[in-house]
Amino acid sequence: MIIITRPDATEEQIEHIVARIRFWGLKAEVSRGAMRVVIGVIGPEDKIREKPLGAFPGVESVTPVLKPYKLVAYEFRGTASQVKIGGIGVGGKELVLMAGPCSVESEDQITTIARAVREAGAKILRGGAFKPRTSPYSFQGLGKLGLQLLATARKETGMPIITEVMDTKDLELVAEYADCLQIGARNMQNFSLLREVGRLNVPVMLKRGMSATIKDLLMSAEYILAEGNFNVLLCERGIRTFETMSRNTLDLNAVPILKSETHLPIVVDPTHGIGIRQHIPSMALAAVAAGADSIMMEVHNAPEQAKSDGEQALLPNDFRDVVERMRAVAKAVGREM
Amino acid sequence: MIIITRPDATEEQIEHIVARIRFWGLKAEVSRGAMRVVIGVIGPEDKIREKPLGAFPGVESVTPVLKPYKLVAYEFRGTASQVKIGGIGVGGKELVLMAGPCSVESEDQITTIARAVREAGAKILRGGAFKPRTSPYSFQGLGKLGLQLLATARKETGMPIITEVMDTKDLELVAEYADCLQIGARNMQNFSLLREVGRLNVPVMLKRGMSATIKDLLMSAEYILAEGNFNVLLCERGIRTFETMSRNTLDLNAVPILKSETHLPIVVDPTHGIGIRQHIPSMALAAVAAGADSIMMEVHNAPEQAKSDGEQALLPNDFRDVVERMRAVAKAVGREM
Amino acid sequence: MIIITRPDATEEQIEHIVARIRFWGLKAEVSRGAMRVVIGVIGPEDKIREKPLGAFPGVESVTPVLKPYKLVAYEFRGTASQVKIGGIGVGGKELVLMAGPCSVESEDQITTIARAVREAGAKILRGGAFKPRTSPYSFQGLGKLGLQLLATARKETGMPIITEVMDTKDLELVAEYADCLQIGARNMQNFSLLREVGRLNVPVMLKRGMSATIKDLLMSAEYILAEGNFNVLLCERGIRTFETMSRNTLDLNAVPILKSETHLPIVVDPTHGIGIRQHIPSMALAAVAAGADSIMMEVHNAPEQAKSDGEQALLPNDFRDVVERMRAVAKAVGREM
Amino acid sequence: MIIITRPDATEEQIEHIVARIRFWGLKAEVSRGAMRVVIGVIGPEDKIREKPLGAFPGVESVTPVLKPYKLVAYEFRGTASQVKIGGIGVGGKELVLMAGPCSVESEDQITTIARAVREAGAKILRGGAFKPRTSPYSFQGLGKLGLQLLATARKETGMPIITEVMDTKDLELVAEYADCLQIGARNMQNFSLLREVGRLNVPVMLKRGMSATIKDLLMSAEYILAEGNFNVLLCERGIRTFETMSRNTLDLNAVPILKSETHLPIVVDPTHGIGIRQHIPSMALAAVAAGADSIMMEVHNAPEQAKSDGEQALLPNDFRDVVERMRAVAKAVGREM
Repeated sequence: MIIITRPDATEEQIEHIVARIRFWGLKAEVSRGAMRVVIGVIGPEDKIREKPLGAFPGVESVTPVLKPYKLVAYEFRGTASQVKIGGIGVGGKELVLMAGPCSVESEDQITTIARAVREAGAKILRGGAFKPRTSPYSFQGLGKLGLQLLATARKETGMPIITEVMDTKDLELVAEYADCLQIGARNMQNFSLLREVGRLNVPVMLKRGMSATIKDLLMSAEYILAEGNFNVLLCERGIRTFETMSRNTLDLNAVPILKSETHLPIVVDPTHGIGIRQHIPSMALAAVAAGADSIMMEVHNAPEQAKSDGEQALLPNDFRDVVERMRAVAKAVGREM
Repeated sequence: MIIITRPDATEEQIEHIVARIRFWGLKAEVSRGAMRVVIGVIGPEDKIREKPLGAFPGVESVTPVLKPYKLVAYEFRGTASQVKIGGIGVGGKELVLMAGPCSVESEDQITTIARAVREAGAKILRGGAFKPRTSPYSFQGLGKLGLQLLATARKETGMPIITEVMDTKDLELVAEYADCLQIGARNMQNFSLLREVGRLNVPVMLKRGMSATIKDLLMSAEYILAEGNFNVLLCERGIRTFETMSRNTLDLNAVPILKSETHLPIVVDPTHGIGIRQHIPSMALAAVAAGADSIMMEVHNAPEQAKSDGEQALLPNDFRDVVERMRAVAKAVGREM
Repeated sequence: MIIITRPDATEEQIEHIVARIRFWGLKAEVSRGAMRVVIGVIGPEDKIREKPLGAFPGVESVTPVLKPYKLVAYEFRGTASQVKIGGIGVGGKELVLMAGPCSVESEDQITTIARAVREAGAKILRGGAFKPRTSPYSFQGLGKLGLQLLATARKETGMPIITEVMDTKDLELVAEYADCLQIGARNMQNFSLLREVGRLNVPVMLKRGMSATIKDLLMSAEYILAEGNFNVLLCERGIRTFETMSRNTLDLNAVPILKSETHLPIVVDPTHGIGIRQHIPSMALAAVAAGADSIMMEVHNAPEQAKSDGEQALLPNDFRDVVERMRAVAKAVGREM
Repeated sequence: MIIITRPDATEEQIEHIVARIRFWGLKAEVSRGAMRVVIGVIGPEDKIREKPLGAFPGVESVTPVLKPYKLVAYEFRGTASQVKIGGIGVGGKELVLMAGPCSVESEDQITTIARAVREAGAKILRGGAFKPRTSPYSFQGLGKLGLQLLATARKETGMPIITEVMDTKDLELVAEYADCLQIGARNMQNFSLLREVGRLNVPVMLKRGMSATIKDLLMSAEYILAEGNFNVLLCERGIRTFETMSRNTLDLNAVPILKSETHLPIVVDPTHGIGIRQHIPSMALAAVAAGADSIMMEVHNAPEQAKSDGEQALLPNDFRDVVERMRAVAKAVGREM
């Protein structure tokens, strides 16, 4: 930690800070400039970070030297990690497609879509059984029945399934069915839920919150790894900005930054990211070029009848078309698909 | 709902939209301009809202006529509601102060601070037992012991207590102690939790998420009311913007907007809002002038030793001072304190 | 400056950085932690700031010790400055009201409104002759005629006038009429214009850009002071956020922060800030309580016929009413009005 | 325009609105729902747009039916436009690279870099002579000398040059040298400058402001086209969000949205967009995949000695490498390079 004092900090205040640092068993290196005093605090960064250094009179700012995340940091592994979802490795040379409807609606709907996306090249089936909806009056998902229908579709197609868990009390149930648990953007800082999925041995895809910084996302993932579950994927799905012509602002800048900050695989969800059906293919291609390890997209065979997010679902034909184009881009950037 | 079509929408597409609307038992009023066709959809707005009108080919935009919230809407009551927290009414002429430490740390700490804030004029005691922390390595709260210490402080001072619940599995425990449950900003869209507190008969203070629009906040409150619990307070505590000199951007614009949109009482938390100790008093005064029904502030008797957020806690003396100034502003805007 | 190196920085890279720092005639203090090396760069901060320290291989971050603004910094004066606009001092104990229409439209309009706002308590008359409009098809202001009408209104009422200058080529003309030049939010980083108003001896009110940080605003003001013109007022008028229920997000947090960072007087414009007529009074009261030195508001005698921004103009009666309430709040926070 | 009234709007208010609409020579279509009245205003949208419909008592919201831009709209041309910069067409099948240093610093510097980027595949040379800098104490560009050095580099390499104009008073001078004028992000709403470049017959690249919506960008371009200059390129260069790990948030969502909204060619500047040297290549590849017509990048042969933005300049070797990879992605998405 580096403490920079205010220009009007008194000698007494500076001495008080130094005394406290030493009292905690840490080392203080004082460097006096013309205008301000800089105090370097040396010792175990974890121990230092707990201390409310900014609360001391005379302090202007406190800058950490080390990053607050450890287990998720790239340096922890020194190489990219691969996470296996039902036998499909995400994070290696292969670019993995996840696709399916927003919500599971019926057996016919989910199996029809599952077959269509598998044929087009998708490897993992997505579908929501528990749906976080802004309005209490919107369709909230089929719950347990939705999970059973996903299992049926898995049996039919052989595709592993990813589905969202919204609450600790549903976790056991969802984990019984899912090959990968999804933690949604709105729950990215539901720390109780993070801790509990951290105690399971199931892959977890953690979506970035709408106003979460990249650092926040990494800290939330750290919660899961700290409990012992290293099978974590991070998903960029759009942040909230002032722009209103896109539903969210898919932040592809996060892809190269995350790839250099963490060893965890990166998924991009262009469907929620831009949220406009006709523009999703462009963003999917861009995500591949930016270096994503996996792309997740929503596909529906009858968007006009969808119970949620019909506006942004691709038709199976459109999906097939964009997968072909993604394949070409993947090859151009040295990925297989 | 009002549907505006794209300039290149075909006659066939328009007819298809109209046919579907009629199939759903709704009325379609078609109005043709030089460039675009406008279709008014008439019927129960709830029923209309479920339909993915934007998913139809040829549609450019869909504008709702009615607001998506009902029970929280000002019109539902036609007058401001008052919520009673342990006998203290929030939402009436009286401006109510809530104060206390960020975290409960020890019996001595919580009772000392409780006495100090009560003496200065606070009516409700705050203090966290379960703490949502960005880092898994930070202090996570005393849990059940924290709740017990809050109960001790309540017994000592007679102040009702407000404390955060982070997860459905802790709800029963927290509700046993709390006079008012706090749902934190990070859980504003934890819909499972919202629904469960909606089934209790305990007041709930719902904090606005960091990237939640005012409409999102109202929709989350609607979840609680829809389950039957009308004892809800809304709390503005700062949103996330590009500005870095304040911890968050306390959005006081939300106060008059919320006061006209909903009957629920409005609390403002300047401590988290601006997050800089020396500037909290100015924002507290501004919040009173803007029309808040209640102000919540963090106070600590030894911020340098606080286990969380010491940087932004007021000292008891500073709190006493700002309360005096708030009293003057409250009077100037016709409130009692 | 404090340089923090990457964990994988080589000894050679660190030596290269240190060598360059010394080559520039500066001092380098190297402090080695377990994971990273911290290099303090000591010498004239201006000289250091010019160097692209972040461009060196092995550097992770560069943290400045001193602030980038000097003349606008509070410490430069050590006390708040007052700026005189046509004899009216802004920045002292008195809270000064500026009011008038968005655009000057006719002699009758401007003189009628001028008389009404003067009577209600406004001291300075605002009115736009050159209007920055998002659309080229919107009313662009009366130009020179608008300035002449403002001069007529000044003569009639004795009120000094503030009006916007949008371009260096109009500067001479506008400066001939204006008692205070306004630089609009969209021109906050029009550095050519800033420099030219810096060479005049006329007060300048600089509005914060929609995405300008507080630091950016101060740096833009520094441009004006650096040219010799210290008669600068800063105006908070709303920033752009994700919220859509208010036109902009009036950032009152900026008021106490600016008051402690700079000696320049602070104006708040709640009209553009929240942009909704019925909510402007609440934000005006909050701005007074937050510590603003001056409040600027738009008033129109016939908003339905206004050529710009009629939606957010107060009627003279509403203005009179809010001024009375502002007077009470001003008194409560120790200001005169 | 579609007017939605408030639930408490009186019959008198509605009649007043309808009467005014008819007084203006427009048609009003009134549609009464259970809760609100919807009034469709029919007539020339331009004429309607000028009216402050939102200023009428009883109005809740006003929704435009037509878009506010005309000449820049895709429909105006019905096909993508190509803009020629010194013989190089931007906006066709060919993906065009623009590259060069942030600032022109010396003849040796600019010609060395020009040769390097031409060899790697760049077609247009960029370089700043007039530099908009946040701080008045930073290097402000060589001005006229910089333009002369650019002309020298053009003569040496045959590459057309693009350079920024910051102010109307410099326009004549800059236009004398430049093959394409750049209007920077900070001047995107400098309407005087937009109008003046609109009267020239020189290509103009308009950069998106840091807080400009896509609609704002299009409206600013409309200013230029409305004066007669249709040779306009739009440039996405990053918007301001809450994220701090990237310098800006390059908004690639804008690429497909702009491609469908306007016929003008789209340039992407990943250098300013993400602002971190090591991550610029990923964003350049993503921009190509997203459908950009041109990519602009900063290259410097000695970033450590650069007078501006050395932190984000690519070395010529790195540039050569990323161009090769861009070529592969361009081919994969059906573009030539």
